[in-house]
Amino acid sequence: MAGGTKRLPRAVREQQMLDAAVKVFSRNGFYETSMDAVAREADISKPMLYLYYGSKDELFAACVGREASRFMQAIEVDASPSLPASQRLRAVIAGFLAYVDTNRDAWRVMYREATGQAAFASLAHANRERVVDMTAVLLKEASKHAPPDTDFEMYAVALVGSGEAIADRLASGMVELSRAVDIMWSFIWGGIRGERSDTKG
Amino acid sequence: MAGGTKRLPRAVREQQMLDAAVKVFSRNGFYETSMDAVAREADISKPMLYLYYGSKDELFAACVGREASRFMQAIEVDASPSLPASQRLRAVIAGFLAYVDTNRDAWRVMYREATGQAAFASLAHANRERVVDMTAVLLKEASKHAPPDTDFEMYAVALVGSGEAIADRLASGMVELSRAVDIMWSFIWGGIRGERSDTKG
Repeated sequence: MAGGTKRLPRAVREQQMLDAAVKVFSRNGFYETSMDAVAREADISKPMLYLYYGSKDELFAACVGREASRFMQAIEVDASPSLPASQRLRAVIAGFLAYVDTNRDAWRVMYREATGQAAFASLAHANRERVVDMTAVLLKEASKHAPPDTDFEMYAVALVGSGEAIADRLASGMVELSRAVDIMWSFIWGGIRGERSDTKG
Repeated sequence: MAGGTKRLPRAVREQQMLDAAVKVFSRNGFYETSMDAVAREADISKPMLYLYYGSKDELFAACVGREASRFMQAIEVDASPSLPASQRLRAVIAGFLAYVDTNRDAWRVMYREATGQAAFASLAHANRERVVDMTAVLLKEASKHAPPDTDFEMYAVALVGSGEAIADRLASGMVELSRAVDIMWSFIWGGIRGERSDTKG
């Protein structure tokens, strides 16, 4: 195996190393992950791994960076401006949850591990703020009947927080994708009381 | 100062050490906190701190344990069974956010730090599950008009996630308590579209 990978182009090998690293970081957490374990998972030598990524911090930063841009791409593509805002909002939620569903390790590394490490918390924080801002804009466009003083940013904070919690369940296989999307959607849009029932609390 | 604290009863001194530790853990994070810094903050000697808490792990566990039981007490007291379920739900949300507002350091240590450390994640996880279960029961009792197949547990997951996100804003002073409670309440109950407006999405 190791011999067969020797002639791979640098970019391909980098991605393979990151794939392996995401897997190991997700399984063991940042502090319990060793460069040895990542090298083993990637089926390369440890010196080779160090040649590409000089330290565990650097390797982790590269993982978080790659996953964060994939993540942003996944949810931004779905916010196509040709759709009405409420449908774009639903598409973003669906895109977000579909990303998590197919990138469970990446989700754990990016959100659970990165936010717990002081050195990477600001990166994770900046990503979350971008998602919150994007969500606030969509919520505002989609909510024509909301009172004029509605604080869309705080609603977006709440929505992103609930989305992350549902995503955690999804990443650990406790709920199916389509059900997760329905729940998120009815949570913010239909409300817990049911779509057309009595609106008195 | 150090001399004046020598004759304090053990229980009082323990609480003072935990107060100091929560403050330092919240400021620096788990990994960047030293026993030295906690001893300094508590105005005691490092050997004295080790006498009470044998290691940083033990000290952190004691912090998380104390804050978790205070937290559960704060929100369970507010779920008085004499009120209708929807009012109890609101009281729990208000109690939760009031706890966070007056215990900002504790909140950060218990939720942000503890969930990021593999060794303590299961404790934090167990607490969150208790809150989710309690919320699911209240949601179910409060939602007489919800469709019969409503997945209250997943709604509770979403609600607790949004509550944690709002709590983070509260703990960093970005929103006021009363406003945070209103937003949480209208988020789950009134929905983003406004209390009595058109219910078509």
